[in-house]
Amino acid sequence: MKCEVINVGTELLLGQSINTNARDIGLKLAAAGLDCYCQTTVGDNLERIAAAIKTALTRADAIILTGGLGSTDDDLTRDAVAAALHLPLQPVPALEKLIRAKLRDFAPTATDKTMRQALLPAGAIAIKPTLGTAAGFVVEHKGRLIAATPGVPAEMNRMLEADIIPRLRVGSASGAVILSRILKIYGLREIEIENQIQDIIDAQTNPTLAPLIMRGSVAIRISAKAPDVDSALAIIADTQDALRERLGDYIFAIDTEEMESEVGKLLVAQDLSLATAESITGGLIGDRITNVAGSSAYYAGGVIAYDNEIKQRLLDVCPQTLLSHGAVSAPTAEEMAIGARTALGTDLAIAVTGIAGPDGGSAEKPVGLVYFALATAESIVCSNRTFHGDRNDIRFKTSQYALNMLRLYLLDRARRGGASA
Amino acid sequence: MKCEVINVGTELLLGQSINTNARDIGLKLAAAGLDCYCQTTVGDNLERIAAAIKTALTRADAIILTGGLGSTDDDLTRDAVAAALHLPLQPVPALEKLIRAKLRDFAPTATDKTMRQALLPAGAIAIKPTLGTAAGFVVEHKGRLIAATPGVPAEMNRMLEADIIPRLRVGSASGAVILSRILKIYGLREIEIENQIQDIIDAQTNPTLAPLIMRGSVAIRISAKAPDVDSALAIIADTQDALRERLGDYIFAIDTEEMESEVGKLLVAQDLSLATAESITGGLIGDRITNVAGSSAYYAGGVIAYDNEIKQRLLDVCPQTLLSHGAVSAPTAEEMAIGARTALGTDLAIAVTGIAGPDGGSAEKPVGLVYFALATAESIVCSNRTFHGDRNDIRFKTSQYALNMLRLYLLDRARRGGASA
Repeated sequence: MKCEVINVGTELLLGQSINTNARDIGLKLAAAGLDCYCQTTVGDNLERIAAAIKTALTRADAIILTGGLGSTDDDLTRDAVAAALHLPLQPVPALEKLIRAKLRDFAPTATDKTMRQALLPAGAIAIKPTLGTAAGFVVEHKGRLIAATPGVPAEMNRMLEADIIPRLRVGSASGAVILSRILKIYGLREIEIENQIQDIIDAQTNPTLAPLIMRGSVAIRISAKAPDVDSALAIIADTQDALRERLGDYIFAIDTEEMESEVGKLLVAQDLSLATAESITGGLIGDRITNVAGSSAYYAGGVIAYDNEIKQRLLDVCPQTLLSHGAVSAPTAEEMAIGARTALGTDLAIAVTGIAGPDGGSAEKPVGLVYFALATAESIVCSNRTFHGDRNDIRFKTSQYALNMLRLYLLDRARRGGASA
Repeated sequence: MKCEVINVGTELLLGQSINTNARDIGLKLAAAGLDCYCQTTVGDNLERIAAAIKTALTRADAIILTGGLGSTDDDLTRDAVAAALHLPLQPVPALEKLIRAKLRDFAPTATDKTMRQALLPAGAIAIKPTLGTAAGFVVEHKGRLIAATPGVPAEMNRMLEADIIPRLRVGSASGAVILSRILKIYGLREIEIENQIQDIIDAQTNPTLAPLIMRGSVAIRISAKAPDVDSALAIIADTQDALRERLGDYIFAIDTEEMESEVGKLLVAQDLSLATAESITGGLIGDRITNVAGSSAYYAGGVIAYDNEIKQRLLDVCPQTLLSHGAVSAPTAEEMAIGARTALGTDLAIAVTGIAGPDGGSAEKPVGLVYFALATAESIVCSNRTFHGDRNDIRFKTSQYALNMLRLYLLDRARRGGASA
């Protein structure tokens, strides 16, 4: 079953929205073992949407369209599908009723324009909207399936999972499954990884290995093709073990897991509580930690000590330390970590202070310079790094390094048999 | 000058990376007045990349490819361009030298594989890499321009701006410019907006108006076509004024501006300082505020009071309040805001407390329920909302609502003539 994706929307071509739908559809098709060889984005233009559909029909067994199903003049996906398949558009009474009911609250006099959303290509099956008045639909054409959903991500994802993928799976005859696993790596460059595992890469044909560059880390994708899910997983597991033996603790997470969820698991396993003291990241580390469900079990909270006065008031950093060493210094980071651990009464506290830019750098302390400190009952560990990129990059890389520092400490502590934090 | 974009990478088709490059290229081409009617994503497959290039050549004056220029076996963009244009690949001595020099530190024995990166289609001009060893290139073919950059976003953006767009502008003969402006709206649904401005939408052909649904807000895109930038801006300005008259303060930002940068401007203009007290958002509000360069001028910092004990210890919330009303309640939000304003010594403090889920909800206090409080010298304003979506959505919508509450207060305060905060 070969699928293609066509995302409709001038805002995507103009870069005004980011195409999360392409990503979400990719993830879900791959998980369902359905091949996808091409994604196309076209604007709100009848001829170009129809041309994209016709081109895709020459290559694919199924086409998934997103966007262009609303009620405005530039919502043209219904018309384009009808044109490409030479089908008339027909009103669907059930949709007319549903749209009138939904609109009663907001627009008592539903216009003809709004009611365009009740029109579908002849023979299409409507997918009921839950968020607005734009229905999705599926239509079969010469043994091929054409599905369309609104562009709103939540609605697209729901229709894809509940209505479209189940139909595609029924239509899939090959029975082959492609599964992938991603090993995320922190602390090695792509080329250093390749040097360490080149022989494993070269020896493989199934699974295949491919390096990926991600934000603040690199990764290796292991992809296996097999008749069923269990066989694919078994193929992946062998290679994963071999890579883990080489790369050890540099591997920090698998698949959709992130640094923050790994840190969370280690904290839970060792029954330790955590506080944060953030200057340069302004709350980003706390945000990442608390984006993990269940984080209230180990994360007490933190202090965002953006201003130097707050470092003194809430974290008890010495005015003298700030004066002699500056806010961006190892002594300040240490005192911030110790201060957060004391103020919040936790087992561990991590602190970061640095220069995010674009201003505030000097020859001695350039933009991107960050100091880190981790305070525990037994010790205070300190470190520093200089990161490159824009303000947003530097802040993200800082949060990634801080969480990794915590992860490595917790791994080491577990190996020492859970000595006192 | 019609451009097409081809993003190469199986990780994009599998949904393992999000295609920020497509967005960035879209933004930059639009800003340069270059048309882009199609973006295609294909996997790391020689034939399919070459086929995508050939198809694009039938429609476009210029093609921009990203990704597939590294040294691994699945980096096939060089080969695909050469195959599609029937050009041989030839070693570029300057690139060989540069790659050997760059690799000396990491891989003393550069392999043949690594040196593949020094091969380019005959006649291509190399674009020097700054981040790794993968060069970009441009090659002309029968009056069309084919450009390729690595997939790493920072490198792609740099090459696009410095080397590719200047060449495309020279080749652009039409002289017409398309400019867009986005008005971001908070507090109205798409259909409510359409009801209010339908007559303006209907009356327009240049500029055109299109509604967009964004994360935590909606927007209207105004697009104008004109012989030059100034004329396009003038056309946009008239419509923008008409929309602003109808929608007023519901419009919270323009183009790439966000709620946090608007709040920042208002705080600077009124010379007010801000603190945050975050429970449900765990630092996200602070993170968003400090992602704006220059935010240290008005943002002192905050307390992430995730645990109830921290609400008491650092924000002086009464144990009795937590006991009688619960952590997710109006009285707790109020005391958090007052506590943050006092502890951090700022003019204003905003507090949020709520239930992000997936657990922790009840019939009385469901997942998504959030209380907000804004403490000023003269008053304490309180509010609550119930948001829908997953944990991540609820937390983001909470930050958006909190920042908007602050924005509306500051707008009102400015109109009152900057009365005491």
